[in-house]
Amino acid sequence: MKLTLIGAGGFRTPVIYRALAAAEVTTQYDDVAFYDIDRARLDRIGCVLDGISQELGSTVPVTMTTDLEAAVDGADIVYCAVRAGGMAGRILDETAALAQGVIGQETTGPGGITFALRTVPIVTEIAQVVARRAPDATFVNFTNPVGLVTEAIRLVLGDRVIGICDAPLDLCKRVAGALGRPPEELWFDYFGINHLGWLRGVMSGGRDVLPELFADRDRLEGFEEGRLFGADWLRSVGMIPNEYLYYYYFNAEALASMQAGNVRSAFLAKQQAAFFAGHGSPSEALRDWQRTHAAREASYMEEAWTGREDDMAGIVAARGAGDYGRLALDLIDALHGDGQQVMILDVPNRSSLPFLDEEAIVEVPCVIGRGGIVPVAIGSVPMEAQGLILAVRAAERAAIEAALSGSRQMAIKALALHPLVPSVDVAGRILDGYLAGQPALVDQFGAG
Amino acid sequence: MKLTLIGAGGFRTPVIYRALAAAEVTTQYDDVAFYDIDRARLDRIGCVLDGISQELGSTVPVTMTTDLEAAVDGADIVYCAVRAGGMAGRILDETAALAQGVIGQETTGPGGITFALRTVPIVTEIAQVVARRAPDATFVNFTNPVGLVTEAIRLVLGDRVIGICDAPLDLCKRVAGALGRPPEELWFDYFGINHLGWLRGVMSGGRDVLPELFADRDRLEGFEEGRLFGADWLRSVGMIPNEYLYYYYFNAEALASMQAGNVRSAFLAKQQAAFFAGHGSPSEALRDWQRTHAAREASYMEEAWTGREDDMAGIVAARGAGDYGRLALDLIDALHGDGQQVMILDVPNRSSLPFLDEEAIVEVPCVIGRGGIVPVAIGSVPMEAQGLILAVRAAERAAIEAALSGSRQMAIKALALHPLVPSVDVAGRILDGYLAGQPALVDQFGAG
Amino acid sequence: MKLTLIGAGGFRTPVIYRALAAAEVTTQYDDVAFYDIDRARLDRIGCVLDGISQELGSTVPVTMTTDLEAAVDGADIVYCAVRAGGMAGRILDETAALAQGVIGQETTGPGGITFALRTVPIVTEIAQVVARRAPDATFVNFTNPVGLVTEAIRLVLGDRVIGICDAPLDLCKRVAGALGRPPEELWFDYFGINHLGWLRGVMSGGRDVLPELFADRDRLEGFEEGRLFGADWLRSVGMIPNEYLYYYYFNAEALASMQAGNVRSAFLAKQQAAFFAGHGSPSEALRDWQRTHAAREASYMEEAWTGREDDMAGIVAARGAGDYGRLALDLIDALHGDGQQVMILDVPNRSSLPFLDEEAIVEVPCVIGRGGIVPVAIGSVPMEAQGLILAVRAAERAAIEAALSGSRQMAIKALALHPLVPSVDVAGRILDGYLAGQPALVDQFGAG
Amino acid sequence: MKLTLIGAGGFRTPVIYRALAAAEVTTQYDDVAFYDIDRARLDRIGCVLDGISQELGSTVPVTMTTDLEAAVDGADIVYCAVRAGGMAGRILDETAALAQGVIGQETTGPGGITFALRTVPIVTEIAQVVARRAPDATFVNFTNPVGLVTEAIRLVLGDRVIGICDAPLDLCKRVAGALGRPPEELWFDYFGINHLGWLRGVMSGGRDVLPELFADRDRLEGFEEGRLFGADWLRSVGMIPNEYLYYYYFNAEALASMQAGNVRSAFLAKQQAAFFAGHGSPSEALRDWQRTHAAREASYMEEAWTGREDDMAGIVAARGAGDYGRLALDLIDALHGDGQQVMILDVPNRSSLPFLDEEAIVEVPCVIGRGGIVPVAIGSVPMEAQGLILAVRAAERAAIEAALSGSRQMAIKALALHPLVPSVDVAGRILDGYLAGQPALVDQFGAG
Repeated sequence: MKLTLIGAGGFRTPVIYRALAAAEVTTQYDDVAFYDIDRARLDRIGCVLDGISQELGSTVPVTMTTDLEAAVDGADIVYCAVRAGGMAGRILDETAALAQGVIGQETTGPGGITFALRTVPIVTEIAQVVARRAPDATFVNFTNPVGLVTEAIRLVLGDRVIGICDAPLDLCKRVAGALGRPPEELWFDYFGINHLGWLRGVMSGGRDVLPELFADRDRLEGFEEGRLFGADWLRSVGMIPNEYLYYYYFNAEALASMQAGNVRSAFLAKQQAAFFAGHGSPSEALRDWQRTHAAREASYMEEAWTGREDDMAGIVAARGAGDYGRLALDLIDALHGDGQQVMILDVPNRSSLPFLDEEAIVEVPCVIGRGGIVPVAIGSVPMEAQGLILAVRAAERAAIEAALSGSRQMAIKALALHPLVPSVDVAGRILDGYLAGQPALVDQFGAG
Repeated sequence: MKLTLIGAGGFRTPVIYRALAAAEVTTQYDDVAFYDIDRARLDRIGCVLDGISQELGSTVPVTMTTDLEAAVDGADIVYCAVRAGGMAGRILDETAALAQGVIGQETTGPGGITFALRTVPIVTEIAQVVARRAPDATFVNFTNPVGLVTEAIRLVLGDRVIGICDAPLDLCKRVAGALGRPPEELWFDYFGINHLGWLRGVMSGGRDVLPELFADRDRLEGFEEGRLFGADWLRSVGMIPNEYLYYYYFNAEALASMQAGNVRSAFLAKQQAAFFAGHGSPSEALRDWQRTHAAREASYMEEAWTGREDDMAGIVAARGAGDYGRLALDLIDALHGDGQQVMILDVPNRSSLPFLDEEAIVEVPCVIGRGGIVPVAIGSVPMEAQGLILAVRAAERAAIEAALSGSRQMAIKALALHPLVPSVDVAGRILDGYLAGQPALVDQFGAG
Repeated sequence: MKLTLIGAGGFRTPVIYRALAAAEVTTQYDDVAFYDIDRARLDRIGCVLDGISQELGSTVPVTMTTDLEAAVDGADIVYCAVRAGGMAGRILDETAALAQGVIGQETTGPGGITFALRTVPIVTEIAQVVARRAPDATFVNFTNPVGLVTEAIRLVLGDRVIGICDAPLDLCKRVAGALGRPPEELWFDYFGINHLGWLRGVMSGGRDVLPELFADRDRLEGFEEGRLFGADWLRSVGMIPNEYLYYYYFNAEALASMQAGNVRSAFLAKQQAAFFAGHGSPSEALRDWQRTHAAREASYMEEAWTGREDDMAGIVAARGAGDYGRLALDLIDALHGDGQQVMILDVPNRSSLPFLDEEAIVEVPCVIGRGGIVPVAIGSVPMEAQGLILAVRAAERAAIEAALSGSRQMAIKALALHPLVPSVDVAGRILDGYLAGQPALVDQFGAG
Repeated sequence: MKLTLIGAGGFRTPVIYRALAAAEVTTQYDDVAFYDIDRARLDRIGCVLDGISQELGSTVPVTMTTDLEAAVDGADIVYCAVRAGGMAGRILDETAALAQGVIGQETTGPGGITFALRTVPIVTEIAQVVARRAPDATFVNFTNPVGLVTEAIRLVLGDRVIGICDAPLDLCKRVAGALGRPPEELWFDYFGINHLGWLRGVMSGGRDVLPELFADRDRLEGFEEGRLFGADWLRSVGMIPNEYLYYYYFNAEALASMQAGNVRSAFLAKQQAAFFAGHGSPSEALRDWQRTHAAREASYMEEAWTGREDDMAGIVAARGAGDYGRLALDLIDALHGDGQQVMILDVPNRSSLPFLDEEAIVEVPCVIGRGGIVPVAIGSVPMEAQGLILAVRAAERAAIEAALSGSRQMAIKALALHPLVPSVDVAGRILDGYLAGQPALVDQFGAG
């Protein structure tokens, strides 16, 4: 089994490698190709991986390469987690929005749209290489915005692509914790699209136990989303929203916090620049990486906790090690192992959410086995959730079309249709601010 | 045939009366009851009506009354155009929103929601009187927000209620004008819910001629909506939006204009207070009314034209006399006359917009005749239009529930779900600002 | 305005001509081209038309031609009422089915499917000529099976084609008569596909008055469909079915009657052969035609009345002159006249019947005016009606595919999917029986 | 864990017991109550169970009882497999239909409807006892017609009821065999309602491998359904139908075979009467039962093989031991064990089949775990499958309504709506034939 990781110079690569090296997975990999366009970053990450190998006393047959064709050739599984434009691009996504008084966030709001303009052409090219060099490979997409990018790759690879995000699983685990029940005994009735979903119920023995949580304010506010949204609003919604819904339900507050300086990309850019500029032995590299990673995790969604920093400290402490690394490997294990597993993935809708077309990528529980992946049926959902999902998906589809066509009009449409952008003119100014930082794109999307 | 007009002390009553008195209608009315809770306003309006009668040399068998039961008793048609809380209420709706940095508009945005909290209980009571005293009457609802209020009345009167708004017809006429074609030769493929609709196509001889308009920038920007939205955005949308969509598509600009002082209710309150405080002979009253009415029409949607006042002057000049008065009477004529007429009305969906439930009140072309009223089938519409309609309708349904239950939680939910309200906390502050001006409602909706 | 009638040698052409000549229409026709492939039939019909002209003392500018290109060239309206294979074809459709113990009927059951196999290629060719020689013409399709053939023509002409059938209007008029109300004061809530529809309600002043009819057994059984189906079954169904549903609801009885010799095509073939073999002056030809036509009408659906011939006599007496001729001309008048008319037509679904796709041809009330034609929204219908419509439409779509591809497998599938065909093997035998009478088709559909 | 088996005097009870006694299950049962209304049958079956216990040298804590309340009290799981009216009832269902020239089959066609008229009131009473004495129990319904009966029980027990049938699993296993692949490596894309379903695809590694089978006539006709339907028809359908679809697709042939004497109930009645009349030691009883059971299995669906008895011999030889006994126990294991299992069950639709309402009981793959049971999303299916499912479900819903109301009109409607009943009058005669054998029901459903 050959696994190829595209974008392996990314900061989170060691998380995946550790899961592989620790033999936490059942699938046997006899070739693992780590590909990136940036040799220096790849080397630095490679050094961290060596540190992990030494620590665990294990070896994984790894190749590090900047040759995409070679990396992909004959792969059984391709992971794709690229960040087009690097951290500078993310800063641009976030600041171009903020400069117009709109939240600066890389996946939600206009940041996700400009990110997509830059990313879709690149992942499309990668997908074309995969179609040619590894036509049977399963393509696992981590690249953000996951739903939109998965829809775009699907235009090239069809059913071979699956999107994945760790946010729903983390939410489900926290809710299980708040309920005092092991997650493996529960069914999580989660639905939505990427970064726009809700946990509608938690079934145990055929009964919904989520009302128990709603009935107990202390337990309800005792976990991350509970504290984030507050018991009153959660009771109004009647569901537990994905944390990214904070940017919708508390847009004004998130914006104020960002305007006060809580812009994540700036923090990460500085932090990662320091890490990638570092050098030293594998064990030193690993230690640097771990320190940087811990600071990163501790500051996740900081903009949501302005004025209640104490709450946030508790939230950070309660966060587990995170399953980002395991998640994708578990998916591969599920596809190649015995029996059936259930994971929340980004896959074509069929009729899971009946108000969306069959091809739309939805984020819902799926059954996974050697046969393949099938989403479960969700049935009807509240009208407001339908409205929000349709509005965001409409903006995302316009973004794909803009990215592939290079149409300025379509790019503005994508931005303007996004529910968090307050006007067409603001959309135009965000695009222009973005283009100012991406001169190479001006040819396509034109000057303002 | 007995016609009852509820809310007859309203400023626009003479517009309806003139159509009656000028015998522009085919239905014979042998009893027209004008009802209002405010005797003084009713008298002043009555004086204007006398002025109209004198001018036209005609008489309509009118009764003026403040007794609702008597007014409604035995009515064949009931018009309902009440303004709960009067102009002071409207000021409150608009300023409570503006104070929180959200557009202040009586039907769109939070203003429509607080307006509904106040209005739904009152129209529900009126509907109950109608159910008792005129069970077979056709109930024509003009009361804003028309869609929401019609859904609420439907809970009492079922199919007897029809909602009506003049905005779609005005839009269609302007587009016909821009196309240089008589409206009666065209089919207007309009769809949506009240104050949230789009003209998707204009059929002539089975062909869509709207693309002709889109292809010609000058003609496209030569009428009100064209100039309001601009050719570029209209081409992106591919449809002509109802002017109220300005508050969505150009929310930032509308807000800035309102924050700069363009708040319609304040203007109207002052203007109407002056009118209602006036006195004099019928002809003097009529003259006062006409002057006031002209100024009112001239300033309609002024907030959308900040910085392009010259454009607006042209727009105002191009506006016809308006068909508000005729519209409702035409509906009655259509219900009682020969053949079939088509009007854009607010009626239950059936399957007109297939993404909405069958009971939802939609605003679409309807066939009207002695048999009754049936909406046409619209078919699929763009995803973004679906998203916006569902989002707003979800907020409106929460508002009905809040108004009928008096639940603070539901009132905040209604406000927070509205796409133009940027957070749950802002929703709470808007409600509290509103309640500060409506102390009588604090018992129900609680203090903040 | 040029009107072209394709299939003008058909027996019912004089019905249309009379409406034209009697100036019962408002549209001015300055060229009426009567086209048929059979010159002899065309001449005989032409003689009848002369008889009508003489009787009415009027002249219509008629051309009789066997040149399709010339007939169609520059037409504004094209009527198409062809019978591919003539009466011999119809006999074959009916007997091939009957020979296998399945009802022999030209539109319902396997007869409609074999009829389609023969007809679709011919109307497709005609449509291609129209697309070339009269690209803007409105194409009015009378050719049976109307729904299926209209879907097939739509593949060539898109929205230019409209299907039409007189059965729904006749049903509505009879129900109005039974209710003792003028049809023009009622709304007929009819839905379905061609020859498979139901009258669900009859609205008067916004109220359904059909329950009045259901409540009164005598009135309910006092008109054609009432006597045909019987009050008990109508009450079970809760709607008034189109008379063609007799072949579904009373299939066993219809079959027995046909097996006893009531096969309509044999009767018509004999009758019409006699008529077309005749000769004489225009007035003699007209008299011959009238006699033949009266006998034809009197025996319509005779197979449904076996054993209750007395009932049938009353039914025949109650039948009016029929509106077949007027119907299509009324449609043209509606498309070119003032205001809006409502007719039950066969048009694309949009969302009229929400359980069918948007392109499916449905038979529902439509609004017609200079703008074009739009179906009304029907909303949800009983599950059994959905099931039957979907089953028949699936068979019809397979028939179109079979006709266009010449695939034997698809032809058998079309027959086997039809709800009235009791097995795949029977379907195969019906096809073989049919091919035995159509040797020219054996090349395509193969031998059994 | 207490398991109650209702209808334990049924002939197939030993199949379930053997699975329990052989410890093929993981759930621990500390009380197994076998209930039947017929003590003599219960004793005879008990004797067979003793034979099994002796053979396996194992003991299961069994209680045999004719007291329903005691049997159900405190149960964790209730199996329900009753045959209302016994084998005599089944004979009546089959012969009442056959007497009118309609296939006599206990679940498909009118036999399923009359069976339901008799069964629904009885299972409703049982469900009410369960609601009272074991409100938290999982109710597993085997009682035929499974879909209809499960919908009826759902009216009492809501989500606590699950329907189950072994036919889909057997089909899937046979297809896996024909594909030469182990079933546990495949995903079976099966959908429908009970006894009316199709295997649309077989996924392996994310690809549909069913086309491989369609491409190879020998393999395609090498298993039961392949030989039953024939390669040509299967290729037309493009799916593998559940064997019960033989009664639809080859209705004429099935009927002819039944008319020739292949009526299953008569055979079974004789066979089982002999068995139940027997006596002897446990080992003798077991031997008698095994002999009877083998003969029963060997003759399953004999009516479909008339004229090709040799084929059938091969089919019977190829049939495995059958998983009827394991199936239900596997379901319980899945509900109480670790991880997630997938089984094809009869559960509420949610949006699995988007053309059906959310409450309809569908038969589709479901995920089962400690959390509960959730159906997967199927998405769009061929129009003809939609049509057939809707038609049959409409008849079944009318049957439930008839059974609960005792309405003759509704009973005739249920029969007449069934696609295999050729007319309303035939429906009436079938009902009357049925009532002639069920005098106790004449009070309700009236005389003809």
